[in-house]
Order: sequence, then structure tokens, then C-alpha cells
Amino acid sequence: MSTLIAPSNHSPAEDAQALQKAFKGWGADDKAIISILGHRNVHQRQQIRKAYEELFQEDLIKRLESEISGDFERAMYRWMLEPAERDAVLANVAMRNGNKDFHVIVEIACVLSAEELLAVRRAYRCRYKHSLEEDVAANTTAHLRQLLVGLVSSFRYEGDEINARLAQSEANILHETVKEKKGNYEEAIRILTTRSKTQLVATFNRYKDEHNISISKKLLDQTSDDFNKALHTAIRCINDHKKYYEKVLRNAMKRVGTDEDALSRVVVTRAEKDLRDIKDLYYKRNSVHLEDAVAKETSGDYKKFILTLLGKQD
Amino acid sequence: MSTLIAPSNHSPAEDAQALQKAFKGWGADDKAIISILGHRNVHQRQQIRKAYEELFQEDLIKRLESEISGDFERAMYRWMLEPAERDAVLANVAMRNGNKDFHVIVEIACVLSAEELLAVRRAYRCRYKHSLEEDVAANTTAHLRQLLVGLVSSFRYEGDEINARLAQSEANILHETVKEKKGNYEEAIRILTTRSKTQLVATFNRYKDEHNISISKKLLDQTSDDFNKALHTAIRCINDHKKYYEKVLRNAMKRVGTDEDALSRVVVTRAEKDLRDIKDLYYKRNSVHLEDAVAKETSGDYKKFILTLLGKQD
Repeated sequence: MSTLIAPSNHSPAEDAQALQKAFKGWGADDKAIISILGHRNVHQRQQIRKAYEELFQEDLIKRLESEISGDFERAMYRWMLEPAERDAVLANVAMRNGNKDFHVIVEIACVLSAEELLAVRRAYRCRYKHSLEEDVAANTTAHLRQLLVGLVSSFRYEGDEINARLAQSEANILHETVKEKKGNYEEAIRILTTRSKTQLVATFNRYKDEHNISISKKLLDQTSDDFNKALHTAIRCINDHKKYYEKVLRNAMKRVGTDEDALSRVVVTRAEKDLRDIKDLYYKRNSVHLEDAVAKETSGDYKKFILTLLGKQD
Repeated sequence: MSTLIAPSNHSPAEDAQALQKAFKGWGADDKAIISILGHRNVHQRQQIRKAYEELFQEDLIKRLESEISGDFERAMYRWMLEPAERDAVLANVAMRNGNKDFHVIVEIACVLSAEELLAVRRAYRCRYKHSLEEDVAANTTAHLRQLLVGLVSSFRYEGDEINARLAQSEANILHETVKEKKGNYEEAIRILTTRSKTQLVATFNRYKDEHNISISKKLLDQTSDDFNKALHTAIRCINDHKKYYEKVLRNAMKRVGTDEDALSRVVVTRAEKDLRDIKDLYYKRNSVHLEDAVAKETSGDYKKFILTLLGKQD
């Protein structure tokens, strides 16, 4: 369930005018900006952007970029993009940050539905004049490349059918891969990049039945090179992406110096989808409400904005 | 240009009734069937199928399968499917035939546009309850798998931009791959499966400029294992698919015992697209008209049908 609190009816033109008023003078009225844009769903935000363009012959996103700054600006920028374009930007930024951010690409490839992933590939092509897989391939090598390119290029079958025999045999293949440190990566990559998610979850369950440990936990015992990390993220995202996101949030706020990029990414991308469930998981795991953790670790307009998206009433 | 001769207006209901009449009695009136269905474009054929279903509560394709047989039936079956579904069937049949037919999958992946290939993947998923890449991956290994899965999963950028520096550096990489028999396959696969076709043609041209031989010709000197054959087909299809198809037709009729499957595949899939250009290339290369070659090598209803699709007037 979503955490976003948006009115069922709003006037895009009135919102655009209120925003323009908030931009006036020295220093924008950040509170007003948040009270509008932090309470509009994806469709409403696009309508406001359009109305703003028509009324003031100016791109609202560009104007926002010049009016606000820092973590608040970055979060708002991502919030204002349509989901497919936002993910295209996140993937591109992740590549420019080098290997350490490849998990963002794995998330996008493994959490989205086949059609949603395709929309990201379309948006990426349109924005960057390259295909997503082209840039991923050019920035990686060896098994990591094979895995990432396979994941972002997938168009998985989404039916409910499970082949139990296949789940057993492929759980065995994954076991061999994980057991030997130099296992049969090719087959593990084939399985993870091409099977349906339903089939993969059945395979992961067979693994757990036989080895009394989840395959993702088992992977953590291995040498954690980039490939193993990507494999681990892929399995977690396919198996239970809400639990995965809970952990991303936990890690983002566990460190000295919060990881605002990770926090914003999860909140902005999930607010209109299942952030309420992720919040519940967070409380269950940490005995602290996510809002309280965020309030403690962040400050200023950024804090206000993230808490608004988390569903805090003004 | 297309070779199909179809009326600008037709009555789907009248066509359906004429077909039903042709099916009556012992042995269908094949001439009547060809004179109708051999002169209807893809949209018209789907309308006829729909009208037939409504009028006679029977699937026209199933009825055709029971009324006609052999090469004629197989060609007509493919002709009656919508293009994306037809390619899905061709790809699936190719896999069931084992390694020798992988060139059909390469053709589909490399000749179609990004959106057309995607439509085939959708149709495949819908018909076979697996993704196309899933079945390709499960039926192949090693470099051949990497190449084929990469090709069928691609969603290439389709802009006209060419990066000349990149064309040069990647022509060098391809040269290294082709020169050493155990070259840097990973990089060659990356280049061929992810770059835009425009960029790849520029890369092939750079190769030719430097080595005075086309890369596809050079590949023919290598050991021709399945991987090298697939690589060769991919390069030819991307570089100039019409010339590629001309050669498929030439080879199909060169052998003792015509390869009707190949002949039907090219004629049925290209009749509404660019079969006229392929015909011209055939004449230029063989000094024989394609229709004359087909007339000599085939017989009966199959011959009549293929010649009709080639644009022969009744």
C-alpha cells in the first residue's frame, strides 16, 4: 500500500500558480512547495507540470532545480519525473558512480514488472541516445556484465505456473554455484536472468528446504566481489523486494552520516506503491517507526519532504 | 517494396463465404483458396479470420490445416498468422529442430526493429508460457548462448547518430576476435548485441576500409562452429538483410531437393515488406528471375501459392 496522501481532486492551474508564488522573492517558500507537490500523485504532478509550462512558459522541474538545493533538490527532482524516466535517470547515475552502485540497476531490473522494465528501457533510449543494456555492457566485464545485461534485458514470463521438477534441478545448480567459489556461473546467470519470478521463488524455496538456509544468506558467506553482490541483490529483489527495501533503509540510516541517496531512492520510488508495507516491515525489524528514524537522521526541508512522502500529516 | 497484390477494398464476409465454399466436398478448391488469401494483406487476412469465426463458429486456420497439406499447408499456416506470432512460431520450431536452425532466431532478432522484436517476445510469452530468451538460453550453452540471448533480448537504440571513434575502436576489437580463432568473444558479443544498427554498420565499414575484406567474408575463413555461424548470420542480417535473404533463397534452390521451409520463410515474411527488392537482388546476382527459379524448383499448389505471393498475376 501507498503512503502518499493526495486529494482526489485538485486544480493543476491553481497548483501551478501557488508554486509560482512560492518561488517569488529571495529564497523559495519550501514549505508551500512541499505542501503541494508532496501531496500529489504521479498523474497530478504531470498535470501540474503541464499547467505550469502553459501558464509561465517555463519548465517546472528546471525552476525547482534553481530554487531549491542539496538533498531536498535531488529528492524533489526524482519525485517530479515520471516513474520510467526516474528509473532511467537512477540507472544512468548509478553507472556514472562506478561499480559500487550497480545494486540500483539490479533493483530496477528485478523489482519492476516486465512491462515496467520495458518502459524504463524506452525512457533510457530516448533520454541518453543509447540502449540501457548498451551502457551497462560498456561499463562492466565478465560475469558481472553477463548478469547485469541479462537482468536489464529480460522480459520475463509472468504466469503463475510452477514446474516443480525444474525448481528442484535448478536449485541444485544454484547450490553448486554457491558451494564452490568458482561455480557454474553461466548456468546460475541463465536461471536468474530468464526464469519467471514465480518459478524462481519456487527454486529458492526448494534450496531452503534442502539446505536449511536461504540462498541469499548462503551467498553472504562467499567472497563478496561485485558479481556476488549483484547476484545477492538480484535474489533478494526477486524473492521479496519489500524486505530488501527495508534493509536498504536500515543500512542508509545505520551509518554515521545518513545515506540520503538511498533513503530518497526508496521513499520516492515506493511512496505510491508499497511504502506502507515497507514501513511496517521496518517497525517489525527495528522496533522503531521509520518516520522517527528519518526524523532523527535528517533535517530541514529534506526531512519535511521525506516525512510528507512517508504519509506524515502536516 | 512489397510484392503482394491485394485489392484496396474487399468484403471479409464474402471472402469467408467463398472460402467455406472452397472447403466443401471431397478435396478443397486450392485454386480458390490461393486466389483469395494470396491476395489479402495482413489486416485483411485478420478480418477474414474474424468474419469466418463469426459466420461458421470455426477457426479458419484450423480448417485450413485440415483441408490442405504438405508444404502448401505449412506456408499457408505461417501466412495466416500475424507477423509477431508467426515469428514466435518460427523461433520455437527452430529451437525444436536443434542447433542447425539457430540462424532463424538470429534473423528475427537482427532484422526486425526494436519494437517489432518486442512484439515477437510478447507473442512468444503468450503462446508458449515461457519467455523467448528463456527457451533460447535453455537450449544453448557457452558463447552461442550469450550471443543468441543477447540478440533476442536487445532493444537497440534506433537513432542515426554515429560515433566514429567508437566505430574505429570496435572495428579493431572485432578484428582481434576474427583474427585469433579464440579471440575476445565477450567483447564481440557485447558489441553485436548492444550497439545500434547504424553504429554497427559504421563499425563494419571501418573494418572493411582497413582490411579490404568485409568482416562477414573474413569470418567464413574461420572454423565454422555454431557460434561462428551465428555471428556470421548476425553480421549479415544487420549489415544488409535484403542481400542476406537473397542468399537464403539462392541456397534454398541450389541444392538437390529444394529447401521449402527456407523458401516459404523468406517469401511469407517479406512479401508485404521488401520482397520486391530481394527479387531484384536475386536477378542481379543469378541472372534468373526469382519467379522462374521457383517455378522450376517447386510444383502444385505450393508453387501456385508462392508465385502468387511473389506478385505473379493470375
